[in-house]
Amino acid sequence: MSSPVTLIALLHGPDRPGLVAKVSGWIFERGGNIMHADQHHDREAGIFFQRIEWEPKAGAAVADAAAFRTFAAGLGMAVQVTSSASRPKVVMFVSKAEHCFHDLALRWHEGEFAGELVAVIGNHADLAEVAKTYGLPFHHIPITAETKAAAEAKQLALLHELGAELVVLARYMQVLSADFLEKIGRPVINIHHSFLPAFAGGKPYHQAHARGVKLIGATAHYATRDLDEGPIIHQDVARVTHRHGVEDLIRKGRDLEKTVLAQAVRWHLGGRVLVYGHKTVVFD
Amino acid sequence: MSSPVTLIALLHGPDRPGLVAKVSGWIFERGGNIMHADQHHDREAGIFFQRIEWEPKAGAAVADAAAFRTFAAGLGMAVQVTSSASRPKVVMFVSKAEHCFHDLALRWHEGEFAGELVAVIGNHADLAEVAKTYGLPFHHIPITAETKAAAEAKQLALLHELGAELVVLARYMQVLSADFLEKIGRPVINIHHSFLPAFAGGKPYHQAHARGVKLIGATAHYATRDLDEGPIIHQDVARVTHRHGVEDLIRKGRDLEKTVLAQAVRWHLGGRVLVYGHKTVVFD
Amino acid sequence: MSSPVTLIALLHGPDRPGLVAKVSGWIFERGGNIMHADQHHDREAGIFFQRIEWEPKAGAAVADAAAFRTFAAGLGMAVQVTSSASRPKVVMFVSKAEHCFHDLALRWHEGEFAGELVAVIGNHADLAEVAKTYGLPFHHIPITAETKAAAEAKQLALLHELGAELVVLARYMQVLSADFLEKIGRPVINIHHSFLPAFAGGKPYHQAHARGVKLIGATAHYATRDLDEGPIIHQDVARVTHRHGVEDLIRKGRDLEKTVLAQAVRWHLGGRVLVYGHKTVVFD
Amino acid sequence: MSSPVTLIALLHGPDRPGLVAKVSGWIFERGGNIMHADQHHDREAGIFFQRIEWEPKAGAAVADAAAFRTFAAGLGMAVQVTSSASRPKVVMFVSKAEHCFHDLALRWHEGEFAGELVAVIGNHADLAEVAKTYGLPFHHIPITAETKAAAEAKQLALLHELGAELVVLARYMQVLSADFLEKIGRPVINIHHSFLPAFAGGKPYHQAHARGVKLIGATAHYATRDLDEGPIIHQDVARVTHRHGVEDLIRKGRDLEKTVLAQAVRWHLGGRVLVYGHKTVVFD
Repeated sequence: MSSPVTLIALLHGPDRPGLVAKVSGWIFERGGNIMHADQHHDREAGIFFQRIEWEPKAGAAVADAAAFRTFAAGLGMAVQVTSSASRPKVVMFVSKAEHCFHDLALRWHEGEFAGELVAVIGNHADLAEVAKTYGLPFHHIPITAETKAAAEAKQLALLHELGAELVVLARYMQVLSADFLEKIGRPVINIHHSFLPAFAGGKPYHQAHARGVKLIGATAHYATRDLDEGPIIHQDVARVTHRHGVEDLIRKGRDLEKTVLAQAVRWHLGGRVLVYGHKTVVFD
Repeated sequence: MSSPVTLIALLHGPDRPGLVAKVSGWIFERGGNIMHADQHHDREAGIFFQRIEWEPKAGAAVADAAAFRTFAAGLGMAVQVTSSASRPKVVMFVSKAEHCFHDLALRWHEGEFAGELVAVIGNHADLAEVAKTYGLPFHHIPITAETKAAAEAKQLALLHELGAELVVLARYMQVLSADFLEKIGRPVINIHHSFLPAFAGGKPYHQAHARGVKLIGATAHYATRDLDEGPIIHQDVARVTHRHGVEDLIRKGRDLEKTVLAQAVRWHLGGRVLVYGHKTVVFD
Repeated sequence: MSSPVTLIALLHGPDRPGLVAKVSGWIFERGGNIMHADQHHDREAGIFFQRIEWEPKAGAAVADAAAFRTFAAGLGMAVQVTSSASRPKVVMFVSKAEHCFHDLALRWHEGEFAGELVAVIGNHADLAEVAKTYGLPFHHIPITAETKAAAEAKQLALLHELGAELVVLARYMQVLSADFLEKIGRPVINIHHSFLPAFAGGKPYHQAHARGVKLIGATAHYATRDLDEGPIIHQDVARVTHRHGVEDLIRKGRDLEKTVLAQAVRWHLGGRVLVYGHKTVVFD
Repeated sequence: MSSPVTLIALLHGPDRPGLVAKVSGWIFERGGNIMHADQHHDREAGIFFQRIEWEPKAGAAVADAAAFRTFAAGLGMAVQVTSSASRPKVVMFVSKAEHCFHDLALRWHEGEFAGELVAVIGNHADLAEVAKTYGLPFHHIPITAETKAAAEAKQLALLHELGAELVVLARYMQVLSADFLEKIGRPVINIHHSFLPAFAGGKPYHQAHARGVKLIGATAHYATRDLDEGPIIHQDVARVTHRHGVEDLIRKGRDLEKTVLAQAVRWHLGGRVLVYGHKTVVFD
């Protein structure tokens, strides 16, 4: 299927009458055809949110994307515009755990994501061989307490060189430094293996087992300087009983982590996640 | 909270460029402010669907609702416009089972529905007393094979007299005749106690138990002449095991029936359900 | 249906070989017939847990219940034995919110619980009238900061007088004092309107909305001196989006609170919940 | 972890008093220690079901397994006994779809299954290369209408040669002939991509889309001569909306198919599934 090119805009800013009419009128006047449009008003905060996807006139995609940015800025709106023709480059960070790595690599293979997986960076080399079977370049950047600053600098340089537009932490078991997150300049999606804000921090399945909860969860969120406090994109849970030991929680958790992270990455790459403050609007 | 009056339009018709712009432009020109708008395109069928909710200029709600109908017809769109100021009258049909009756009556009491529950019609008198505790008029119209036609005529006359705009079958255990459904001229929402199309027809929990399924379900749908084949509004399921006998399925099913029916009624009264063919578009 | 009387024993204690054989042998020798038996071993802790339900020889239920207690004590096991012929008396504590009250009262009416709902105690009188429609005695015991100690003494005296064997806090909005919980001597089941341990404390729906979580939850637990830290019996969640304001979370939460609390009460009264430490084993 | 060897017995037969005592007494007398035991009575049918897992006296596993079979037969019970030391050989049948293949292969790699995946048989050669990356022998046995009987004979011979004890149809797109299923003499687990009995037969996602259901499902069942009518082991569902086209249903369905099939295989290999008639008892 060679679907026609579409442009996707995520807008938000102070609410005022006529925004929908202005945006849709602008698109119509330039010969575009709106495929999907979804608005949300946060009445308390007085903020307008919109995701709008349209087919521009043949050949006008690049020019219209640029023009729309100017137009939206003129309305006082923050805006992101992406084209379905562009395929953002994605880099995956891994450690030793391989379930999220395989899951994402296979979904990429199935064509589930609107982007290109261009490289894998591991602080351990365990997944180097298997990355090759997917044809994925693997970069081993080991990290110790002493080398952390240097290793992070190397990661940043590599991301820059690769032109990465998204970083996915696929059970990457190193805490990213505040300095790194400040400099990175690209969204970073992390999967935390608990239903945040419950069981933030380390060993959440052990915490959950000790507390005797009846559901375990996983949370995909943007990584920010406030560890485990970044904007939540997606969450899900699974039922557990007294029969499940910590090992079972870990096994059941793997399924949650895979599907929750994959969904968050799919939504992000589909231009469906709008961040404001420490929350997200997900246009699903 | 005295929220301002809003108008809600449900539109659908042949897709063509500019529809969003035309609709939102029309509203803007008349001084309205769009609160929510949600579009959907069925590419295969070439159909455009929209739910749009806006605050008209102060005092203009009645005039604008009428004008919008004309405007939409001019675009070749089928349209329904409702005002948040109007409270559609709802009539509940019951037999002997009381769980859905109580559930809906209590939710009405909690203010969950954008409509008025004006009467209860029972083919049995079992719920007559309890209806009174909610201040609800109860009409007993018994039905036998011989009196069915006359009883249905009585029901129709009563619905007309009450000005009912929606009928909810809250586990009403009589099959409505094709003739009745042809004449009724108001939407009828039914709750079927299975995950349709599995286990259509009678005694679905017995069927489910006999088949050994691991999930039971409930389905809220519009009643049409094709029994159990009407457009589905909402469905949900619950897990069962070999430990659950038919009695347990019935008990667990009651919870499903209550929540699924209530959600369907809430969506319908909120102007969120658009029917086309034998399917629905639910703008949730 | 006049089902035959069964005895239900909940046992736990140090694991050692032969426990299942000894328990089932004891029952068989006295002419009993085991209907259900479920064991669990906590290998790490070396603890054996069992729920066993049997039909004693005709007429032997009372004698066998007593004899089994002695027998189990001789095995070094903590034990609770209940007879299906006994109907434990339950008292509900309420404030102003009525959804859990109605839900439990109606389920009692449907015969879902193995116990008798004998009274309702309210710190507000709002539900006094409606309690009457269910034929339930209502006791109004108002509480202020100054009168708290006296009011709790009154509650304790009333529970004693009524012979209550279980207290259910159906959205009772007063914190029970440590002194009260020490003296009460009966299990108390509470419903907390969040997925504990997330959002413990007050206004959990507001906390959840502020954090931007994608699921809200409810937790039924035994009330202990450690507020919101008691053994968890049951939990469930519902999906929310950015479209849901705090009011929607509260509405959706009501459904969760009702079903989670009812399930916990049903399990407790069915002799299915065994507490050890600050966790539960639920034999469902 | 070198866990001690356990024996697992699945028993069923006519109910009568003393069965639990007899079985647990037999194990105790031979020096065994019961780890888990779970009974179920189907009162209507008068059938007793039990799963019992125990550690036999050191060195006695083989002898006790044989002796237990004789003992159970003497009680009039049908019985299966497996040892945790044995690792049943499993053969996967595939066609072109690879999601279930990868999922199972990776879970095997993670150690989730109590068995050995020894070979993959494909009627197409598409997955031959990728099977090698997992170190799995791949056998290509093409099938056409003309060669079906011969191809099935070849499959049977290969299963025999490999000593297969379980066949898993991982989205194998050929209908197995009644003759094949009669001769195979090993359990066959199939994944059907719908919530059976809804949408049996071909193209279930297309059927589901056409009907406008709000949930799609997947069903793992034992394959029998009655197509799509075999005993159900596990089922799950996922929510869909009008926004999801057939392609989306297929994508969402892949996740369901993977997790439902994997769970069924895990339960089967863990000796947790007892078939009787066309239903299953799953001791989870």
